[in-house]
Amino acid sequence: MIFASDNWAGAHPAIAQALADHAGGHAHAYGDSDLDHAVRRRFCEIFDKDVAVFFVSTGTAANALSLASVSRPGGVAFCHAEAHLVEDEAGATEYLTGGTRLACVGGPLGRIDPQALEAAIRRYPPEFLHAGRPVAVSVTQASEIGTVYAPDELDAIAAVAKEHGLAVHMDGARFTNALVSLDLSPAEMTWKRGVDLLSFGGTKNGCWCAEAVVLFDPAQAGEFAFLHKRAAQLLSKSRFVAAQFQAYFDDDLWLDNARHANAMAARLAECVKRSGSARLAWEPQANEVFAVMAGATAKQLTDAGVAFYDWNAPEGFQGIMAMDERICRFVTGFATTAEEIDRFSGLIA
Amino acid sequence: MIFASDNWAGAHPAIAQALADHAGGHAHAYGDSDLDHAVRRRFCEIFDKDVAVFFVSTGTAANALSLASVSRPGGVAFCHAEAHLVEDEAGATEYLTGGTRLACVGGPLGRIDPQALEAAIRRYPPEFLHAGRPVAVSVTQASEIGTVYAPDELDAIAAVAKEHGLAVHMDGARFTNALVSLDLSPAEMTWKRGVDLLSFGGTKNGCWCAEAVVLFDPAQAGEFAFLHKRAAQLLSKSRFVAAQFQAYFDDDLWLDNARHANAMAARLAECVKRSGSARLAWEPQANEVFAVMAGATAKQLTDAGVAFYDWNAPEGFQGIMAMDERICRFVTGFATTAEEIDRFSGLIA
Amino acid sequence: MIFASDNWAGAHPAIAQALADHAGGHAHAYGDSDLDHAVRRRFCEIFDKDVAVFFVSTGTAANALSLASVSRPGGVAFCHAEAHLVEDEAGATEYLTGGTRLACVGGPLGRIDPQALEAAIRRYPPEFLHAGRPVAVSVTQASEIGTVYAPDELDAIAAVAKEHGLAVHMDGARFTNALVSLDLSPAEMTWKRGVDLLSFGGTKNGCWCAEAVVLFDPAQAGEFAFLHKRAAQLLSKSRFVAAQFQAYFDDDLWLDNARHANAMAARLAECVKRSGSARLAWEPQANEVFAVMAGATAKQLTDAGVAFYDWNAPEGFQGIMAMDERICRFVTGFATTAEEIDRFSGLIA
Amino acid sequence: MIFASDNWAGAHPAIAQALADHAGGHAHAYGDSDLDHAVRRRFCEIFDKDVAVFFVSTGTAANALSLASVSRPGGVAFCHAEAHLVEDEAGATEYLTGGTRLACVGGPLGRIDPQALEAAIRRYPPEFLHAGRPVAVSVTQASEIGTVYAPDELDAIAAVAKEHGLAVHMDGARFTNALVSLDLSPAEMTWKRGVDLLSFGGTKNGCWCAEAVVLFDPAQAGEFAFLHKRAAQLLSKSRFVAAQFQAYFDDDLWLDNARHANAMAARLAECVKRSGSARLAWEPQANEVFAVMAGATAKQLTDAGVAFYDWNAPEGFQGIMAMDERICRFVTGFATTAEEIDRFSGLIA
Repeated sequence: MIFASDNWAGAHPAIAQALADHAGGHAHAYGDSDLDHAVRRRFCEIFDKDVAVFFVSTGTAANALSLASVSRPGGVAFCHAEAHLVEDEAGATEYLTGGTRLACVGGPLGRIDPQALEAAIRRYPPEFLHAGRPVAVSVTQASEIGTVYAPDELDAIAAVAKEHGLAVHMDGARFTNALVSLDLSPAEMTWKRGVDLLSFGGTKNGCWCAEAVVLFDPAQAGEFAFLHKRAAQLLSKSRFVAAQFQAYFDDDLWLDNARHANAMAARLAECVKRSGSARLAWEPQANEVFAVMAGATAKQLTDAGVAFYDWNAPEGFQGIMAMDERICRFVTGFATTAEEIDRFSGLIA
Repeated sequence: MIFASDNWAGAHPAIAQALADHAGGHAHAYGDSDLDHAVRRRFCEIFDKDVAVFFVSTGTAANALSLASVSRPGGVAFCHAEAHLVEDEAGATEYLTGGTRLACVGGPLGRIDPQALEAAIRRYPPEFLHAGRPVAVSVTQASEIGTVYAPDELDAIAAVAKEHGLAVHMDGARFTNALVSLDLSPAEMTWKRGVDLLSFGGTKNGCWCAEAVVLFDPAQAGEFAFLHKRAAQLLSKSRFVAAQFQAYFDDDLWLDNARHANAMAARLAECVKRSGSARLAWEPQANEVFAVMAGATAKQLTDAGVAFYDWNAPEGFQGIMAMDERICRFVTGFATTAEEIDRFSGLIA
Repeated sequence: MIFASDNWAGAHPAIAQALADHAGGHAHAYGDSDLDHAVRRRFCEIFDKDVAVFFVSTGTAANALSLASVSRPGGVAFCHAEAHLVEDEAGATEYLTGGTRLACVGGPLGRIDPQALEAAIRRYPPEFLHAGRPVAVSVTQASEIGTVYAPDELDAIAAVAKEHGLAVHMDGARFTNALVSLDLSPAEMTWKRGVDLLSFGGTKNGCWCAEAVVLFDPAQAGEFAFLHKRAAQLLSKSRFVAAQFQAYFDDDLWLDNARHANAMAARLAECVKRSGSARLAWEPQANEVFAVMAGATAKQLTDAGVAFYDWNAPEGFQGIMAMDERICRFVTGFATTAEEIDRFSGLIA
Repeated sequence: MIFASDNWAGAHPAIAQALADHAGGHAHAYGDSDLDHAVRRRFCEIFDKDVAVFFVSTGTAANALSLASVSRPGGVAFCHAEAHLVEDEAGATEYLTGGTRLACVGGPLGRIDPQALEAAIRRYPPEFLHAGRPVAVSVTQASEIGTVYAPDELDAIAAVAKEHGLAVHMDGARFTNALVSLDLSPAEMTWKRGVDLLSFGGTKNGCWCAEAVVLFDPAQAGEFAFLHKRAAQLLSKSRFVAAQFQAYFDDDLWLDNARHANAMAARLAECVKRSGSARLAWEPQANEVFAVMAGATAKQLTDAGVAFYDWNAPEGFQGIMAMDERICRFVTGFATTAEEIDRFSGLIA
């Protein structure tokens, strides 16, 4: 019963097979093989737009380089206070951008509040050089706490961003989980909503190591290429990332994997709802379930072999919990089985 | 007849199999799985020493983070003028170290001359703050032009470095090719020669994507972990790099692959020597052959389907070539076949 | 009636005279003149401790280099949400430290709340690499809004910092105004309270351009020298900064200037208190007065030739103001005259 | 007999007077005073062009920020191997640009050889991402060894630069010494020669602390303002730098000071020529004289109270000196007197 993280899983058999299939032969290195080119074209089809795509080895690299590409001296990027950028990347963005500040914005349930964003941007009035200058807003879709922005919520954020001339970045480490949750097309969830750059993650959804930066303005590719290379992210045998993405997109594997993961999360959430010893912290919308339970209950789960993590209570949430209660995060993935959920259900019933 | 680069090959079947074998199941992420730990212990055995090991996704990352870990404000790192660090990494070291200078040192055949190193260091006298301060020397083993440092040559460089308090870094993108060429143990070619940090490359020698930084002082691991994470190089499913290295070391695959590649290079060099239309630029010592030939000859090879690259003439070499001659680089690898060499031989005979 | 900022004033006549007195002759450059050495010794006397002192050209440089000297990869420095570091330095600290994050901490009246600091630090648990790591806390004394930390308040912050292994930095752009307000010795307000590094400002208190970093552990000087030089802050004719500080300390000019400025602020605050059209936002403790007034009143003042700035309402303050009210900042300095205050008083009476 | 450096002098009486004259009163801070504006207009008149001007506190800052403003990721800036940028700034440019490489180019007598520049640039072929990309060339006028580029020499370098799309930066720490040596107008020595950015130095020529970046394309000012502020170079009481420059330009003080310094150097060179114990290393063209002499002779001078520095022999020069000979640098300035030179003459006669 492994619900610790979706990156504890291995690689989906189809991904593993794709790697094996492409093991032989020779091909151009550094992203210039036929396979690299074909997969980049596939991204254009999937996003229904001419896009530029750069493969990177981690989601952190995707986020930091995305923001680097739109930042400038004195730059400030806005993101949710609980964003991965802020909480889990050890300052990679600040470092790889040469000092761009991440300014935290609040908002309920892991989503930036557009009015709070507006207020945060206004702390940096145009022409007041001393404060620095807003350059970007980053939204996480699905969010760090398993919620998703609805299309109109993305529109509202993009509207604020565009009014102030900011680029909109989407951290899509769990992009596909949000996509199937909302039942939107990739275009409808990104550039049609005003998103300029996307960290597109495959690793948590069945790949071994497949992350990409998608630039919705492909004219930026020439400059991005230097950021990418200079940050040590241009893989020599890049075609193995391409191979993963090829299999990922074939036969809708990516969508199926995400649907499965989300369904497992919904099933797990039902167990929690029915349980006498735990309750949902909030409704899951993707592949993460957050449950409030007593410390003793959590310990029993751990002792019974359930892997999960404690989670910091979001802003404003603490008052809702009893002293001895904790928030526990359960993440499902392509490899989660209904049988695991059912065993878990037995433990908390 | 692909001699363009050893990173044009795919993955050795045993590496591909290892990836497939570990595709299933769940394991701790971020380098904390049993497999990660086991493979790091394997590195200790192989180097006959307690070492700290960090997996990274590119050789460029290995080099830049190695130097970052020993640099300080105003730092200057010395390397050969033709080093990969200087020629092929788009300023990654300067960027990821926050501005460490790469000071180029000359020396014949791609190897730093110890006296030239001494002179270069002396341009930065201790206590003359204005110049900056030497912090490290980086040697490339095997070198960019397929030569290797003999043990006493490494000793001589390390002696100069240590006299001035500099760390010694080895760029081992082709570590194993040098190792089998010299018939030394890993310890004898590294820390017993004064090497403090090693970029250990597996990718060019049969892995898909397996590079590591090896710290011969494991007490540095705590600090390095932050450099590693912050540079977006901490892979979530790190165990897949570990799996590659496990297969790489098993049954001496790494050594066999390198011996094969070197043997193929020797065979190719013989073809060049016997040829009437080309000559060796210098004797190969690892898996790269550099041949001087007329432009017309090179074109014939290209037209016949031989893939290779032109190479800039090293310092002092240009006078030895006729106006219409070029230096061509031919790289062999684990996947090069004797049959390919023989076909090549027929073309230049 | 210039209350816009204490850096709108020129140089005190004694400072101007000192510059003129040292204009002639020749002396060692780059901080190595007899005068530089003498003034650094004077700092040791004043702080009653062996300290290292580096002259810099701006307070921003002093702050950023102080934090650079104690930061490390993945570093996080805590400061008040309204600190100059955050609000007015265009990301200099993030940039000059190579990406150190400034994590904002709340607290009433411009002062960090120790409990909020403790909570903020705990968001970065030791050994949780992913979050980065706390390295320093920076307090502003006097604060950006004219309040001062009492000794026990500094003790409380230092206690939290030390418990977590953090360095304590003091931004003393208005150091002397706080010092005379509290009637403490320099030692009592700094290293005896746990302060490790100080940005010591002279510019706002009568110098033309005289700022310094004071390191209470002089063993750090060797490393700091490289930070200082590399950041383009080692002035060639450094002795002119030294000359300013010499005059600044002679005959207690610094203390007298600050006492005068604070007295003028107190006088101005009395005018506000007595006024029917404005009220104090909070009690001034140094040389800044913040008054709440209607926009129309503020406009009348401006029209009458009073120079001052609007100020963002601190967190939690907005509810206390009427819709049409604003917070206006009035800063006094060594050159402010009682006559100016009295004219001002007439305007708001 | 102080010939150690032109920054060992103090401030010219007219500069000191200007500082005193502006000591009183209040004015807008941060470069926004009437005086700041007036002096920037004066720069436009002097350069016969609409230019943007930013005051900075050191020549190192001027150089590093100039290059930062034209660099991009993977950027490489070319300069002479003996440039101040390389030899005396402790990596400030590499640091403040986030990793721009300084690629050294040779050339006799401290001047870049255009053909060597062309060859150096060609090591970074366009589209070969891996190498990085040329962004700028920096010339030092007058050079570090007291020579000057003739107009056609500047043209030749600019032609190479422009052909490859590089910006041309001039390090003018001793700008005026070169200007009067060549008897050109400021326009003729800069933008009419293709110079895009200038580090304009006043400190070595009679100011206390007055350096500026001059952008010949004033449209760059908006972006430069952020670089300037973020690098901690926006002085609050900026008008005191302006005051120095105002006096510097008034009544041609700058030109007179430089003419005097150059004349003193010529006089000193004559002494050396006539001397039996020393000889000129090369003909001086500005305010620095380099003499070759035996170590014993140099020691006698030192013992007699002459202050000067030893200098590293430029590339290719060493063969011309005897084993016990050294190159000694003698710098003259606005404060050097004929009487000093004559006393010096007596010592080496």
